Amino acid sequence: MTEISIIGTGNVAFHLSKELSSKKIDFKVFGRNISELKNFKNLFQVETFSLFSGINTQSLVVVCVKDDEIENVVNQLSINQKIVYTSGTLSLNLFKKRKNIGVFYPLQTFSKKRLIDFSQVPILIEANTKEFSDELVIFASKISSRVEFADSETRKKIHLAAVFANNFTNHILNISKNLMEKNNLDWDLLKPLIKETFSKIIEGKNPELLQTGPAKRLDFNTIKIQSDQLDGFEKLIYENITNSIIETHKK
Amino acid sequence: MTEISIIGTGNVAFHLSKELSSKKIDFKVFGRNISELKNFKNLFQVETFSLFSGINTQSLVVVCVKDDEIENVVNQLSINQKIVYTSGTLSLNLFKKRKNIGVFYPLQTFSKKRLIDFSQVPILIEANTKEFSDELVIFASKISSRVEFADSETRKKIHLAAVFANNFTNHILNISKNLMEKNNLDWDLLKPLIKETFSKIIEGKNPELLQTGPAKRLDFNTIKIQSDQLDGFEKLIYENITNSIIETHKK
Repeated sequence: MTEISIIGTGNVAFHLSKELSSKKIDFKVFGRNISELKNFKNLFQVETFSLFSGINTQSLVVVCVKDDEIENVVNQLSINQKIVYTSGTLSLNLFKKRKNIGVFYPLQTFSKKRLIDFSQVPILIEANTKEFSDELVIFASKISSRVEFADSETRKKIHLAAVFANNFTNHILNISKNLMEKNNLDWDLLKPLIKETFSKIIEGKNPELLQTGPAKRLDFNTIKIQSDQLDGFEKLIYENITNSIIETHKK
Repeated sequence: MTEISIIGTGNVAFHLSKELSSKKIDFKVFGRNISELKNFKNLFQVETFSLFSGINTQSLVVVCVKDDEIENVVNQLSINQKIVYTSGTLSLNLFKKRKNIGVFYPLQTFSKKRLIDFSQVPILIEANTKEFSDELVIFASKISSRVEFADSETRKKIHLAAVFANNFTNHILNISKNLMEKNNLDWDLLKPLIKETFSKIIEGKNPELLQTGPAKRLDFNTIKIQSDQLDGFEKLIYENITNSIIETHKK
């Protein structure tokens, strides 16, 4: 197995390092954040570097940085270096001049404080050559049992659906929590409801058929009372989602 | 135990009937929907009636109809009848002339096709007299281990937080599903992500600290690419939640 060079010390780099370390796959970590590099060194017994000059030119580089820093990082590496990046949205077309460039997109939300079973994380693969693509599949299959190909257009669509499924539901739950807590109410009271909401989805029920609530019932009196309790973005979100539910279920 | 008269044949009436039946608590069901009444009769071996004249005046009536039909139903019943309704938002102030009126609000989302463990469903109680309130607590405690008092103002706030926690997250998941399916992509690919999203919340993590994604990272290039893929309410929802995440995490 080729050595891996991870660039970045964020959540994706962290979980990938943890996984490579547990699988005894050789890797090194490169980043600008000195204190995070120290954490990685201590946690994963891995060599860390703050300069890219230490990158083995035969290694596979996994760029785990913010989308708008990826191009800049890639451009600092040798034209022959094998490189993948982990973005859901950035198109491979941006890197037409590279010899070996690809995407290794793990479809999951990562927090450093939480364990992830990487074997169940879908990994979406794309590469600019058949040979490099095959190599990436071999690498990804060592980490996950759910490796799939997705071109840039498809990956972009999946990423958008993932933003709704994770980022947006999480923020809506945060609004729910804040609505309780600003009234000194215990958010735990809603936990059985939240558990039921998502258990149904995980079990395979269709959310369209599960929809309940004032908007679904066209209970405009309750909708007015609820909207009047809100302001700012919370009010706008309330009104838009309510109208969207009404439109969806009118069909 | 007083006999229970359930008015309505919707999701709440269904699950309450199921629970009373399994607990061998005497009850009858009253409704307008003849075919649903037949279902209730068959499923729960219960007497059903299409006219309120059959209601035992000594029974406790549980009104399980849409919010905007509750007043109309209550007004058709004897002034001495003991009545509770199951609404999250309707204020008890609307019924000042009644002798025994109260609220029995189960904080859960109910679908007929799915089993509910009623013992874990928080039931919020309110009543216009101390005696009736005590009676309702005794009744509710036969069904759930999580019985709490909540006045109309508090219940209204909890209901609003519940609409975000259930109705809105469910609809956001439905948008996510539709975004995948209209591109012939399998929504199951997102299930590990959805499972992780909600497992964290159920385990007690704070959603504010779990937030990830383009809005959290201020990745405006990706936000633009994603917003451009949407139109109608989906675009409005995308933009408002994105702006709300940015505002929340700017603090």
